[in-house]
Amino acid sequence: MVNPVNTFRLALAPPEESYDVIVVGAGPAGLTCALYLARFGIKTLIISRDVGGQMAIAPEVDDYPGLPSIPGAELAKRFREHVERYGVPIVIDEVTSVEKLERGFRVVTRSGAQYRCRAVVLAIGSRRRKLGVPGEERFLGRGVSYCAVCDGPLYRGKVVAVVGGGNAALSSALYLAKIARKVYLIHRRREFRAMKIYIDAVMSNPKIELKLNKTVKELLGDERLKEVVLEDVETHSLERIEVDGIFIEIGSEPPTEFFRSIGIDVDEDGYAVVNKDMSTNIPGIYVVGDAAGGPNKYRFPQILTAAAEGAIAADSIRRYLLEASRGS
Amino acid sequence: MVNPVNTFRLALAPPEESYDVIVVGAGPAGLTCALYLARFGIKTLIISRDVGGQMAIAPEVDDYPGLPSIPGAELAKRFREHVERYGVPIVIDEVTSVEKLERGFRVVTRSGAQYRCRAVVLAIGSRRRKLGVPGEERFLGRGVSYCAVCDGPLYRGKVVAVVGGGNAALSSALYLAKIARKVYLIHRRREFRAMKIYIDAVMSNPKIELKLNKTVKELLGDERLKEVVLEDVETHSLERIEVDGIFIEIGSEPPTEFFRSIGIDVDEDGYAVVNKDMSTNIPGIYVVGDAAGGPNKYRFPQILTAAAEGAIAADSIRRYLLEASRGS
Repeated sequence: MVNPVNTFRLALAPPEESYDVIVVGAGPAGLTCALYLARFGIKTLIISRDVGGQMAIAPEVDDYPGLPSIPGAELAKRFREHVERYGVPIVIDEVTSVEKLERGFRVVTRSGAQYRCRAVVLAIGSRRRKLGVPGEERFLGRGVSYCAVCDGPLYRGKVVAVVGGGNAALSSALYLAKIARKVYLIHRRREFRAMKIYIDAVMSNPKIELKLNKTVKELLGDERLKEVVLEDVETHSLERIEVDGIFIEIGSEPPTEFFRSIGIDVDEDGYAVVNKDMSTNIPGIYVVGDAAGGPNKYRFPQILTAAAEGAIAADSIRRYLLEASRGS
Repeated sequence: MVNPVNTFRLALAPPEESYDVIVVGAGPAGLTCALYLARFGIKTLIISRDVGGQMAIAPEVDDYPGLPSIPGAELAKRFREHVERYGVPIVIDEVTSVEKLERGFRVVTRSGAQYRCRAVVLAIGSRRRKLGVPGEERFLGRGVSYCAVCDGPLYRGKVVAVVGGGNAALSSALYLAKIARKVYLIHRRREFRAMKIYIDAVMSNPKIELKLNKTVKELLGDERLKEVVLEDVETHSLERIEVDGIFIEIGSEPPTEFFRSIGIDVDEDGYAVVNKDMSTNIPGIYVVGDAAGGPNKYRFPQILTAAAEGAIAADSIRRYLLEASRGS
């Protein structure tokens, strides 16, 4: 017999799925954390907007030991398949809130799903920084890109620009030089803050033209991006260069407001403050990978280091869950 | 014209080869450190007694993300080949001393070779303590393991034993109890020297059977381990238990005396005290991997975490050498 009151209550509040741990994010840190948790026999769910994170958009990865010269998308696939061997489900969705309950946490997603868990791992990465100049929004996807490997192949034989002076910018320029006819590398300083091998390769690549000591002032065009207006940092003189596309590689912005909304302490740059075991100021919440920072962490954002943080968090959660069980 | 005096002097003291960095040890930490250093354009030499370290003797590694179920020797080969792509020489020899010079260091090996360098990375691992009983060597990788977290998943539904009475042994027993059908916990005393939460959890776990006041006398089997012979410490009576695997968790022996001979601070367990950038109390000397410890390090000895420490040390050395150059 159906009890109409219960049916009604179920319709209002469907029973929440329950896990030991919910890992938010499926980049190298999140996938590795889930892999280790599953190996420990801990019931784990991954919720992420995508799989692979920034790793998946890297044109070529050559610094993950044992897998030389591998496309980022292929490496992401291998990480994913490794986790899936342990039967960890991956839900494609966006986590909008993490609420502390009397025991454990409630995780709510944009699609309206709710989950219960005993511990949460936030492996949510860091958003790409924008230039904030006129035309940047307007030409997004019509000449403006933040992902050389995703969009680079669209510019075969064309002229492109890369903005930035770090490893990401230089490696993007080198990648694009293989595809495009010409690559401008725009940097606001005279020196690059990148690995020597990248600098040497950029300097000796005849397809790459350096535009140093220049900032991007404006992006111009009609239907699509056509020109970049550069301003010299010292003389303030303006210059226009014709391009078909521009790739913006100027760093990252951590999810500071999301951390604050949960009550997680952040450092002066907005990264979550983590202890050496990747725990935060909230017992049961861990932050790993690009979004983690604070005085105890040596920041060197690499696939390898992010993955190692995921493994450390898993071991630390294993101990945490054991203690939480005994205390109850 | 040959100057006989000079020739004689050369024969006595050949010119020392000079490198930016000498990495001692070629396990995952040392090889990864060298890989990153080479990528940074830093002139690097590896000196090691063997290549692969403990990784090379693991029967199967399933916790290095992206390379599931790989024999340890194969993973070691891949790490080595990755480093060799960058042209880093590997000298098979044993480092006997590291001397601080006015500028940089002199590294001396057992074969009598001497090298100069500006920074040293000690990735020399930690020896697992062995039982020293008949069958232990013979069944290594065929029932005998020194790492529950690494090899535990191979024993799903089987019967295993753990030897030891500390935190590592008890947490291994608890971990294995989730995977195996039954876990014997063998300890030579009546009391455990472990955290209370581990002791409580072990005591209340129906899958774990205690074998207290017992030592392992011998390991028996044919192709694989089949039986463990136990001896009672007081009565000396013998007992045989049938197992599919035995995990020996009786601690590690870090190279404490070697660290002390160089002047590197060690923690209470004898591991080198490292900062979060893997530097030690001696500027220019770094310790990574299993031999590194101290209050700033979360100890979770895995191939992945060791490799990440190697990468972090490389980044940290890149900054150190840059500063050292600017200061000179």
